[in-house]
Amino acid sequence: MKQPFIMEEIVSVLKRVAPSNKDFVALHEPSFQGNEWSYVKECLDTGWVSSVGKYVDRFEEMLSEYTGVKRAVAVVNGTAALHICLKLVGVESDDEVIVPTLTFIASANAISYCQAIPHFVDSSVETLGLDPNKLADYLLEITEVRNNSCYNKQTGRRIKAVVPMHTFGHPVELDTLVDVCQRYHLELIEDAAESLGSYYKGRHTGNWGRATALSFNGNKIMTTGGGGAILTNDEELGKWAKHLTTTAKKPHNWEFVHDQVGYNYRMPNINAALGCAQLEQLPDFLTRKRALAARYHKVFSKVDGVSFVTEPDFGSSNYWLNAIMLSPKWSHLRDDILQATNEQGIMTRPVWKLLSDLPMYAATPRMDLSVAKQLESCIINIPSSASLGAVHVET
Amino acid sequence: MKQPFIMEEIVSVLKRVAPSNKDFVALHEPSFQGNEWSYVKECLDTGWVSSVGKYVDRFEEMLSEYTGVKRAVAVVNGTAALHICLKLVGVESDDEVIVPTLTFIASANAISYCQAIPHFVDSSVETLGLDPNKLADYLLEITEVRNNSCYNKQTGRRIKAVVPMHTFGHPVELDTLVDVCQRYHLELIEDAAESLGSYYKGRHTGNWGRATALSFNGNKIMTTGGGGAILTNDEELGKWAKHLTTTAKKPHNWEFVHDQVGYNYRMPNINAALGCAQLEQLPDFLTRKRALAARYHKVFSKVDGVSFVTEPDFGSSNYWLNAIMLSPKWSHLRDDILQATNEQGIMTRPVWKLLSDLPMYAATPRMDLSVAKQLESCIINIPSSASLGAVHVET
Repeated sequence: MKQPFIMEEIVSVLKRVAPSNKDFVALHEPSFQGNEWSYVKECLDTGWVSSVGKYVDRFEEMLSEYTGVKRAVAVVNGTAALHICLKLVGVESDDEVIVPTLTFIASANAISYCQAIPHFVDSSVETLGLDPNKLADYLLEITEVRNNSCYNKQTGRRIKAVVPMHTFGHPVELDTLVDVCQRYHLELIEDAAESLGSYYKGRHTGNWGRATALSFNGNKIMTTGGGGAILTNDEELGKWAKHLTTTAKKPHNWEFVHDQVGYNYRMPNINAALGCAQLEQLPDFLTRKRALAARYHKVFSKVDGVSFVTEPDFGSSNYWLNAIMLSPKWSHLRDDILQATNEQGIMTRPVWKLLSDLPMYAATPRMDLSVAKQLESCIINIPSSASLGAVHVET
Repeated sequence: MKQPFIMEEIVSVLKRVAPSNKDFVALHEPSFQGNEWSYVKECLDTGWVSSVGKYVDRFEEMLSEYTGVKRAVAVVNGTAALHICLKLVGVESDDEVIVPTLTFIASANAISYCQAIPHFVDSSVETLGLDPNKLADYLLEITEVRNNSCYNKQTGRRIKAVVPMHTFGHPVELDTLVDVCQRYHLELIEDAAESLGSYYKGRHTGNWGRATALSFNGNKIMTTGGGGAILTNDEELGKWAKHLTTTAKKPHNWEFVHDQVGYNYRMPNINAALGCAQLEQLPDFLTRKRALAARYHKVFSKVDGVSFVTEPDFGSSNYWLNAIMLSPKWSHLRDDILQATNEQGIMTRPVWKLLSDLPMYAATPRMDLSVAKQLESCIINIPSSASLGAVHVET
């Protein structure tokens, strides 16, 4: 009986590599072992819990320093960050925006908030992210460049931007993508929601696009409860991001003058306090997560029919969310494996359903999506908390 | 010299009625004297800081119980709550939405997020909120009802909803407004961002509209750092509000299926923990704030040329933000008084600049706004923190 064997094998590996004292091993849970407590307490003691306060400023400075990007603007979550990034680069109503079909729903929703249309593209097996070579061939076929803008010849609409997402922390192939964007006059926005601590050719992800979105949701490598940030190397864009996310209110001692339709996307100070404490521990989280991934890699390399997803050669991944791929002959067992592991208290999940298959995006433009479709059928995410990386186990 | 006299008089009253040990008296600062500490610590100790957790559920139940509205959905802030309220009642692109010109910018922005158009209306001197009688006369003149919908005869657009705001906590005249909305087939959304703890004819504000927005920003009567909530007595609408604010993800053990364009508007658990602790203290905050207002009222009644804004006969106000009105002969001194008080460390502010005067709303429809214009020129908000209500002073 081959079928039960691979399922048992996977369950056995997960139990050995990511053991836990608890009945239930989460997919990803945060760890609060640093200054979270004292920073949050300070907010309560001083009464500065809301949208103005020193932790917001400090968190933004720390993010900028850590990523090497000139300006960081803290916001309520990654979706809000992405929404503002699109606004910053000039995405307008009825524009198309290139986005992978294999990503979290926020990628497409943020485009919809701008009354723009997601144009779905395929993924790379190496990075799980947008495939820039396949994109280049596709753009050559379907677009024309006029007056420094790129137009979809099939729909007549302008294509304004490309939003790659660094899936599970693994960086996409940015050199090629930057080149494609330049050739086609497309703005590059990096969705680095999952890749804080990940590098492409030695430079932090989020440092390549005109604007970048980060997320600090509870399941991310570090958390602020809920939160996100916008990164940009363009000082003017950074100022505008701050203005747009703080209701576009002009500075004044008492007057309420707002000069454009703005957003209430400020991160509260109490959440930023959590963020400062978490960011201090990020190097340690990274060490643990990479240690956990190395153990998974080693053990899964002995399991037939399963491969562990590793970082691409050109990058260093934060290994935010570990993943295995079932070989094609076993991908029909994906749901059985999900069922068996979850029933045994080991949380696993499939990758997202392709966005191009969701009802509200059914009528949107797309290229051939066969690689993403295949990835959707065979990827399983496995427990990835930094705390699991600390446990010393014999593998 | 009459001019300096009224300024000195106001400063003197503020110093007597709202004394402080600090160099600076804030307009409104939160007070954390309850269980904030232990609830927030529990979030950190258990790792449940993010968008799922027991404090979110508990906070929603507490809000529902406190306001008497069937369902409450906690969200990231009041602007998000208002945005979703508009979606819930069916506001669509190119609809007009009736909104007072004298309100915070979020009121108009939330309408813009729906690609709808704010239609600005005048305020009442008694409530500082939307004047339902003036609205009734206006609608009679400019609208026609066809197929159970109300149309603006001048613009041809559908008018879908009315969004009154209970200014500084004082309830608007709801009986008349409910009647007007029924006659004209307009959905009533209450913007109760400022009126948690305020009642109209014995029933909590937020209980009259089809959907209501609350805010728990740092300057509100109670705070979650940043946060808001949607209230509704319609169970189906409540379920939809929860669905829409949580990325419209269908419940499943592991699958990521989203069935419409949704929003990431969830309140994080750590902020909800703060909310639970604050809501427990709301009755005490109300007592203090009403005591402070009573003192202001008493003392300002002796100051010529200034009247203290009190709750209307038909309602009970939370007195969130206290306000004085300068008589017309002194309104030219408004900015001098703001300057003088702020320079002396007593924070004051004018009411909002009329939204109809802001550049992005310059071309929107509006009625005669003369009352709001007059209120804008003469209202000054004065220190209102609950903590000031506790200080026993001889007035």
